[in-house]
Amino acid sequence: MIIIMKPNASQEAISQVTKLVESKGLQVHLSKGDEVTIVGVVGDKSKLRGINMEISEGVEKVVQVTESYKLVNKKFHPEDSSIPVKHTSIGPGTLTVMAGPCAIENHDQLLQCAQEVKKAGATFLRGGAFKPRTSPYSFQGLEEEGLRYMEEAGRATGLATICEVTSLRALSMAVNYVDMLQIGARNMQNFELLKEVGRSGLPVMLKRGLAATVDEWLNAAEYIISEGNPHIVLCERGIRTYETATRNTLDLSAVPVIRAKSHLPIIVDPSHATGVRALVEHPSQAAVAVGADGLMIEVHPCPSCALSDGPQSLTFSQFAQLMTELKPYAQLENRRL
Amino acid sequence: MIIIMKPNASQEAISQVTKLVESKGLQVHLSKGDEVTIVGVVGDKSKLRGINMEISEGVEKVVQVTESYKLVNKKFHPEDSSIPVKHTSIGPGTLTVMAGPCAIENHDQLLQCAQEVKKAGATFLRGGAFKPRTSPYSFQGLEEEGLRYMEEAGRATGLATICEVTSLRALSMAVNYVDMLQIGARNMQNFELLKEVGRSGLPVMLKRGLAATVDEWLNAAEYIISEGNPHIVLCERGIRTYETATRNTLDLSAVPVIRAKSHLPIIVDPSHATGVRALVEHPSQAAVAVGADGLMIEVHPCPSCALSDGPQSLTFSQFAQLMTELKPYAQLENRRL
Amino acid sequence: MIIIMKPNASQEAISQVTKLVESKGLQVHLSKGDEVTIVGVVGDKSKLRGINMEISEGVEKVVQVTESYKLVNKKFHPEDSSIPVKHTSIGPGTLTVMAGPCAIENHDQLLQCAQEVKKAGATFLRGGAFKPRTSPYSFQGLEEEGLRYMEEAGRATGLATICEVTSLRALSMAVNYVDMLQIGARNMQNFELLKEVGRSGLPVMLKRGLAATVDEWLNAAEYIISEGNPHIVLCERGIRTYETATRNTLDLSAVPVIRAKSHLPIIVDPSHATGVRALVEHPSQAAVAVGADGLMIEVHPCPSCALSDGPQSLTFSQFAQLMTELKPYAQLENRRL
Amino acid sequence: MIIIMKPNASQEAISQVTKLVESKGLQVHLSKGDEVTIVGVVGDKSKLRGINMEISEGVEKVVQVTESYKLVNKKFHPEDSSIPVKHTSIGPGTLTVMAGPCAIENHDQLLQCAQEVKKAGATFLRGGAFKPRTSPYSFQGLEEEGLRYMEEAGRATGLATICEVTSLRALSMAVNYVDMLQIGARNMQNFELLKEVGRSGLPVMLKRGLAATVDEWLNAAEYIISEGNPHIVLCERGIRTYETATRNTLDLSAVPVIRAKSHLPIIVDPSHATGVRALVEHPSQAAVAVGADGLMIEVHPCPSCALSDGPQSLTFSQFAQLMTELKPYAQLENRRL
Repeated sequence: MIIIMKPNASQEAISQVTKLVESKGLQVHLSKGDEVTIVGVVGDKSKLRGINMEISEGVEKVVQVTESYKLVNKKFHPEDSSIPVKHTSIGPGTLTVMAGPCAIENHDQLLQCAQEVKKAGATFLRGGAFKPRTSPYSFQGLEEEGLRYMEEAGRATGLATICEVTSLRALSMAVNYVDMLQIGARNMQNFELLKEVGRSGLPVMLKRGLAATVDEWLNAAEYIISEGNPHIVLCERGIRTYETATRNTLDLSAVPVIRAKSHLPIIVDPSHATGVRALVEHPSQAAVAVGADGLMIEVHPCPSCALSDGPQSLTFSQFAQLMTELKPYAQLENRRL
Repeated sequence: MIIIMKPNASQEAISQVTKLVESKGLQVHLSKGDEVTIVGVVGDKSKLRGINMEISEGVEKVVQVTESYKLVNKKFHPEDSSIPVKHTSIGPGTLTVMAGPCAIENHDQLLQCAQEVKKAGATFLRGGAFKPRTSPYSFQGLEEEGLRYMEEAGRATGLATICEVTSLRALSMAVNYVDMLQIGARNMQNFELLKEVGRSGLPVMLKRGLAATVDEWLNAAEYIISEGNPHIVLCERGIRTYETATRNTLDLSAVPVIRAKSHLPIIVDPSHATGVRALVEHPSQAAVAVGADGLMIEVHPCPSCALSDGPQSLTFSQFAQLMTELKPYAQLENRRL
Repeated sequence: MIIIMKPNASQEAISQVTKLVESKGLQVHLSKGDEVTIVGVVGDKSKLRGINMEISEGVEKVVQVTESYKLVNKKFHPEDSSIPVKHTSIGPGTLTVMAGPCAIENHDQLLQCAQEVKKAGATFLRGGAFKPRTSPYSFQGLEEEGLRYMEEAGRATGLATICEVTSLRALSMAVNYVDMLQIGARNMQNFELLKEVGRSGLPVMLKRGLAATVDEWLNAAEYIISEGNPHIVLCERGIRTYETATRNTLDLSAVPVIRAKSHLPIIVDPSHATGVRALVEHPSQAAVAVGADGLMIEVHPCPSCALSDGPQSLTFSQFAQLMTELKPYAQLENRRL
Repeated sequence: MIIIMKPNASQEAISQVTKLVESKGLQVHLSKGDEVTIVGVVGDKSKLRGINMEISEGVEKVVQVTESYKLVNKKFHPEDSSIPVKHTSIGPGTLTVMAGPCAIENHDQLLQCAQEVKKAGATFLRGGAFKPRTSPYSFQGLEEEGLRYMEEAGRATGLATICEVTSLRALSMAVNYVDMLQIGARNMQNFELLKEVGRSGLPVMLKRGLAATVDEWLNAAEYIISEGNPHIVLCERGIRTYETATRNTLDLSAVPVIRAKSHLPIIVDPSHATGVRALVEHPSQAAVAVGADGLMIEVHPCPSCALSDGPQSLTFSQFAQLMTELKPYAQLENRRL
């Protein structure tokens, strides 16, 4: 931690700050410049908890030198993690494709989706049983009935299954049916849910919040891992910006940024990011080329009849074609698809 | 609803769209321009649920003409609402000031805060018992113990009390102790929590999400009101932008925008918006001048010892001075302070 | 300047950095923490120009401690500036109102505007002779003819006149006709134009760029002042965010932020910020209450016939009423209106 | 154009709007819904110039159906353009790589860069002679001297040359020395400069403004093409968002978006977008995979000595390695590299 004093900070203010730091058993390195004095703090910063240096007399600002997340931090765990799920795993050497409908609508729709995406090469079936919708009057999901279809489709096809949980109630149901949990963008900082997911024992995919920084995202993952669950996969799904030509702005640079800061795998969801079917193909290729560990793609037997997010869903044949197109990109990145 | 066809849409595509709309019992008004054809849809649009016009052949885009929120919409409820809480109310003719510490730290801190803010003219005591913190290693709140202090401070001073709830568990405790619930920015789209708050019977303050549009915010309020709870107050607390000189960007224009779209009262939280004590005074005055129904202000007996958000808290004397300064602004707006 | 080394930086990397700094005649203060080493640099940082510390071996990041703008910086010029223009001045103790049409359309429109805004209490006439428009097919302004009308209206009414310049050509004409120049948001970083305006001898109002940080804005002002022209007024006019309910997001907190960082006056343009006539009144009051030195308001004899930006223009009677409403707010801030 | 009336619009207001439209020689299609009435306008909308429907009595909002850019619009020019420059061309079937230093610093630096990037496979030499810098005290470029080095390096290596112009003065010099002009992000809406570049006869690369929408960007291109210059290449270089982990947020989805809306080629500049050397490689691969027509990469013989933007520059060997890595990606996209 570095404390930068104001240009006109008095000698008294400076010694007050240093005394305060030292009183907590930490050391101080003073650096007096021509314009400002800088107070470097050495030692265990947690001893300063409960002290707000920012508002001490004469302090201009406080710069944190070390990240607040530890267990997901690459600095302390340099090897990239591989997350086991059912018979497969997500991480180095693999390009994981999760595919399926935005919302589970009925038994046949989901089973058909599962069979088709399996045939095309996906290893995960995705599908929403609990749908967080902007308006209370939109379709909210089949809940436990949907989870049952999910389990059945997983059994029938051998696909691993993943389902979003939006509350503790949803979580308590989902753990009985699916192989992997998903925390959606709107719940990235629903800390109660994160902690409970951390205790669930199931692997979890944590989507980036709509306006979350990379650091907030990794801190959210730290909530899960600090409860004892290290099986976390991150998912970039677009951030909110001023641009309206796409629903969100897919931040593909976040993939190498995460790679540099954390050992967790990261996959990309181009369907939610762009919100338009015609914009799924090329961003999917780009996601592989930028180093993502996988993709989450929305597929629907009849996109124009979908109860939610139809415009961004691929048909079965579009998905099969996409999988074919992705193969050489996966090879270039030395990933099994 | 208006469906705008592509310039090169075939006659067949156009009649397919109109047939689809008519098959659901709705009427169509065709408008053929030199460049594009526009299909106006007349009737109950809920009959089209489950049909994604956006991806029908030849469709360029679909424009929604009416908002999806109804019960909070000023169009259907033109008179401004006044929300009763304890002995007071929030809305027209009143400038409500909610003040207190960011986090409840102990019995004495809270009681002292309550007495001082009461003396200065506040009518609500705020204080966090459940703190949503970016890092799992930061102070998370006293929980039920804090709620007990809250109840006691409310009883001792006559102040109404408001406390953030971050989960169903927190909610089930808070309803036994406080007069008003708060949904924080991070939970604005925690729809399970919104619904449950809608069933709680207590008045609720709904903070705007960090990157929420005005329409998403009003839809979140619709989740609460559609469960039977009309006692909702909105709270603008700054949005996330590229600017880093302030913690968030306080969107004061949102106050007249909300006033035009909804009958719900709206208050402003300049403490969280700017994140800096020196930037609380002038934005508070501006919030009153822009038409807000109230303010939420962080106050702490010793900001430099605060366990959270110290830099933005006012001391007691700063708060008392602020209240004095606000009085003539409240008068200009014909609001009791 | 502070150089933060990587946690795993070698001793060699650290001494290479310190040697490099010392070789330029600067001093180094080393602060070795448990996790990282920090190198404080003391002395004239301009000696390091041409050296990119960020990419030296073992460097994590470089934190600048002092701002790059000097002449507009309050630290070196603590007294607030007052900018003289014609018979008036902009700054402490005055609330300057600049009013007039977005675009000058003809002789009578401008003269009528000038007479009416003068009568209502404005001291500046604004009006665009060079209009930067998103599309090349929109009305681009009357150019020199418009400037002549401006001069005449200024002479006839005694109002000071202000006009946007969008190029060196526009500038060379405008200096012959108007009392104050305006640099628009799109040209805030048109550095050639800034420099030339800095040599023009005329006072200048510098609007904030659509996505400019406060620091970039002050650096743009530094371009003008460093050419010898200290007569600069800043103008907040809304920034680009994800919110679409208003055209831009008016950042009123920027007023106290600027006040803390610079001695230059700052005025607010609510017309461009919100883009809607009904959203001019309350934000204008808020701008005064937040401490602005003035307002720029669009007024038009017939807003529905305006060649540009009609929706945000006030009629004469709306403007007169606004001026009446603003008076008590100006008084509260001890400003002459 | 579609005019949406307010729910409570009077019959009189509706007929006033329709009369106004018809009085200009346009036709009206009325669509009366249960809640609102919609007025479709058919015919040449330019006849309505000077009339602001938005503020007519009873009007809720006006929706534009057609884009304001025409000549760069794919609708009216469906075939993708190929832009000839010197012996090469930018567009379908080619992956153009422009490489060189951010700023031209001296004769040897530039010539060495040219030789090395040529050897590695680039076909364009980039280099700044006029540098738009945030602070007036940063290095501003060698100007004409730099242009002479550029011409010489182009002649010596056969590379095409491209240089940013920041003013009419810079433009008038650059046309004598370089093969292609560049408009930087800060000048994307410097309309005077765009028009003059449109008359210059030289091909031009138009970078996206820091906070420009795709539509504003295409309108800026329309300024150039409407002056008679169709040789335009767009360049995505990152947009400003709240995220600070990268300097800007590279919006790779903008590539397929532009492809759908315009026939102009588009290249990507990952160096400026991410601002970090380690984040150039993967985003470059992704840019090719997302369908870009080329890349602009910063290269410097000694990045740690660079006078500007050193942290994002590649060394010669890093660039050579990048080119090798890009080859198979170019092949997958059927582009010659």
